[in-house]
Amino acid sequence: MDERTYTADATPGDTVTVAGWVHELRDLGGIAFLIVRDTSGKIQVKLEKDEMDEELVETGLDVARESVVKIVGDVKEEPRAPTGVEVVPTGIEVIAEAETQLPLDPSGKVDAELPTRLDNRTLDVRRDESKAIFEIRSEVLRAVREEFRSFGSTEITTPKIVATGTEGGTELFPITYFGEEAFMNQSPQLFKQLMVGSGLERVFEIGPIFRAEEHNTPRHLNEATSIDFESAFFDHTEAMDVCEAVTKAAYEGVAENCADELETLGIDDFEVPEEAFPRLTYEEAIERINATGELDEQLVWGDDLPTEGEHVLGQDVGEHYFITDWPSEIKPFYIKDHDDDETLSTGFDMMHPRMELVSGGQREHRFDHLVEGFEQQGLNPDEFEYYTKMFKYGMPPHAGWAIGGERLIMTMLGLDNIREAVLFPRDRQRLSP
Amino acid sequence: MDERTYTADATPGDTVTVAGWVHELRDLGGIAFLIVRDTSGKIQVKLEKDEMDEELVETGLDVARESVVKIVGDVKEEPRAPTGVEVVPTGIEVIAEAETQLPLDPSGKVDAELPTRLDNRTLDVRRDESKAIFEIRSEVLRAVREEFRSFGSTEITTPKIVATGTEGGTELFPITYFGEEAFMNQSPQLFKQLMVGSGLERVFEIGPIFRAEEHNTPRHLNEATSIDFESAFFDHTEAMDVCEAVTKAAYEGVAENCADELETLGIDDFEVPEEAFPRLTYEEAIERINATGELDEQLVWGDDLPTEGEHVLGQDVGEHYFITDWPSEIKPFYIKDHDDDETLSTGFDMMHPRMELVSGGQREHRFDHLVEGFEQQGLNPDEFEYYTKMFKYGMPPHAGWAIGGERLIMTMLGLDNIREAVLFPRDRQRLSP
Repeated sequence: MDERTYTADATPGDTVTVAGWVHELRDLGGIAFLIVRDTSGKIQVKLEKDEMDEELVETGLDVARESVVKIVGDVKEEPRAPTGVEVVPTGIEVIAEAETQLPLDPSGKVDAELPTRLDNRTLDVRRDESKAIFEIRSEVLRAVREEFRSFGSTEITTPKIVATGTEGGTELFPITYFGEEAFMNQSPQLFKQLMVGSGLERVFEIGPIFRAEEHNTPRHLNEATSIDFESAFFDHTEAMDVCEAVTKAAYEGVAENCADELETLGIDDFEVPEEAFPRLTYEEAIERINATGELDEQLVWGDDLPTEGEHVLGQDVGEHYFITDWPSEIKPFYIKDHDDDETLSTGFDMMHPRMELVSGGQREHRFDHLVEGFEQQGLNPDEFEYYTKMFKYGMPPHAGWAIGGERLIMTMLGLDNIREAVLFPRDRQRLSP
Repeated sequence: MDERTYTADATPGDTVTVAGWVHELRDLGGIAFLIVRDTSGKIQVKLEKDEMDEELVETGLDVARESVVKIVGDVKEEPRAPTGVEVVPTGIEVIAEAETQLPLDPSGKVDAELPTRLDNRTLDVRRDESKAIFEIRSEVLRAVREEFRSFGSTEITTPKIVATGTEGGTELFPITYFGEEAFMNQSPQLFKQLMVGSGLERVFEIGPIFRAEEHNTPRHLNEATSIDFESAFFDHTEAMDVCEAVTKAAYEGVAENCADELETLGIDDFEVPEEAFPRLTYEEAIERINATGELDEQLVWGDDLPTEGEHVLGQDVGEHYFITDWPSEIKPFYIKDHDDDETLSTGFDMMHPRMELVSGGQREHRFDHLVEGFEQQGLNPDEFEYYTKMFKYGMPPHAGWAIGGERLIMTMLGLDNIREAVLFPRDRQRLSP
């Protein structure tokens, strides 16, 4: 390529080469305007039919929308142009002609259903709104990692092909691995625990997880991005502190670095959570839900929170919050119970008013208790020996959690469907693109 | 946990709680030293048998190596201690007792074979050398991402479950996906290309790739970390510029932030590449290899470079370098040929003297040529319609590449086996832990 100028950087007086997509052609008769779009924005290119080179004008008038063009020209001030400047072209080259029938209109003038958009993500992410979501997603990942590192965490990579699932054989996608049965990992849980017992002590990972759940809802994915944290010598309250800090960091990053994207999305009330997230016990949570009278049946101790209950409570609390001290029986076996009350788990959930974002807790680090847990869960501890045996060689107390990456973005931006927050979602019906 | 002080931060005059692993007990008779190790380093804890509380001394003398302990005490200057300070304990608590028979000695005094180390990664990464490798790996990932962002790249996440492989059905791990056949993705290639055609234009991803290759060598993995980059409006030379910058940034990050880890690994000649990487054409490369006379048979145009040839050339060049202008016939169909010579590909490899690290090139962005390429490769373009059809709607010229993350770390640190650079390697024999 010749040296290229982003449309946003085109300054009056410069001679520039801009390259991008034909967003629109406005033909006013003697004069026409080609609007060229690139990743930085849009710029107006003036075509004066009787004044400019005929071939150049023709090229500009004939090019189909969404074709890729390269424009050489002089940048002039033009108060009537959308960005206050325009390019007076000396050359227009069509680099890649688009078909005139598009499956999707990137200018956003014609609405498209989500499945059409997902089938045509390339065109969809030319839409300002879609692009904004994925620029924000990129910023969230950056901000979250920076926050993890500020706590001295080491970034790790754990395997996605595994011999056994975190919680047994349910909801796993089976793989054929050189003739052996294997699975796609549903969580880095066991591996990150193995690493807090190593010299790394405090670790994080952002990576894909795979769940063969039959759910097909606006908030479930079969392949999702998990933001995992685990630290040695942490209890569940310290893990919650980091969880809260990381969540706030994601919001702060977006507030600081994505003002344009928020504007594009029409979010003018974006708020970085400032206060400490309220920490409700499970008992308080069900009492508050019951007190609203909105559920058909009153919840009793030991019930899992139904989706409707989460909604009611979320509306009541109105901000991010934790639910702590769950009944042990409804939390996974690898979460530690309170020392002074074995019926009470150190597990916690972090909630957005709309839905659960995080589950975490202090982990069971005592070998005997852990093996017992496997058995109570109906799992064969021998199959997990690669994991359990390390608990015999000095496993520190530790705690951690996982945020669902797409849920974080979905709730942050008020998206209706989690599929808006991932480029190429995977669900029961969708395996392509 | 009580407020904990890292051993590296223990300052004379302070009363501290330190927590970590029992690295060693040195019993000198009337006095003994417990060496406690945490992620920050090691500290000496003094046990004076006749002067201190009997139970405390007994606890300290009896605790098995690699047990997790919590020590409360006063920090004193002690020039004879390894770090110049020691803790005079007022309390010793054994938090997690280790078995006395360890499958691996984290103090490093007894050597262990790689398979034993991989089977017991928790213990292995308590070894200073292993820990150093994974701290460096974490820094490499950080530095590389920062460099990508400095070029205005957007971080993307592409799916790992796919309907078709990048280059067809070979070397793919099959999955059962809700009754349908699917595969684990062997490269984000097609997806990152779909995104340079979107409003994002310039993208990167660091994520897992899966290859069902039968290789079992010290430099192949069946699950690896791919560092992918792709940019619209780039040709292959611009892609090489970024590739070089990102590689240098990885070295710079390690040089700046991992001095201790390099020292631990005994690397006292770590050099950040300063000069531009030489760019050899394929033709020059085979001439130079032939000129050495070290290969049994002379290479001729069209031959792929044998491993031995890469070694010979790498020794000859002695630094990172590119090989450009490959014969089109030995590069994948999605790489563009030179416009003025169709037998010549814009594909390039970036080499470390020991091995290939990167392959990249300018991509074929013309729909007709692309579909032809699929056919020539013996693939059915219809199966890839989700990808090819986007090339009809304005696909800009673009170029990119992928670095093998583990190879980057392996060559940077002079590791013998690529499995040293990944916590839980996956190969034909190894599926667990």
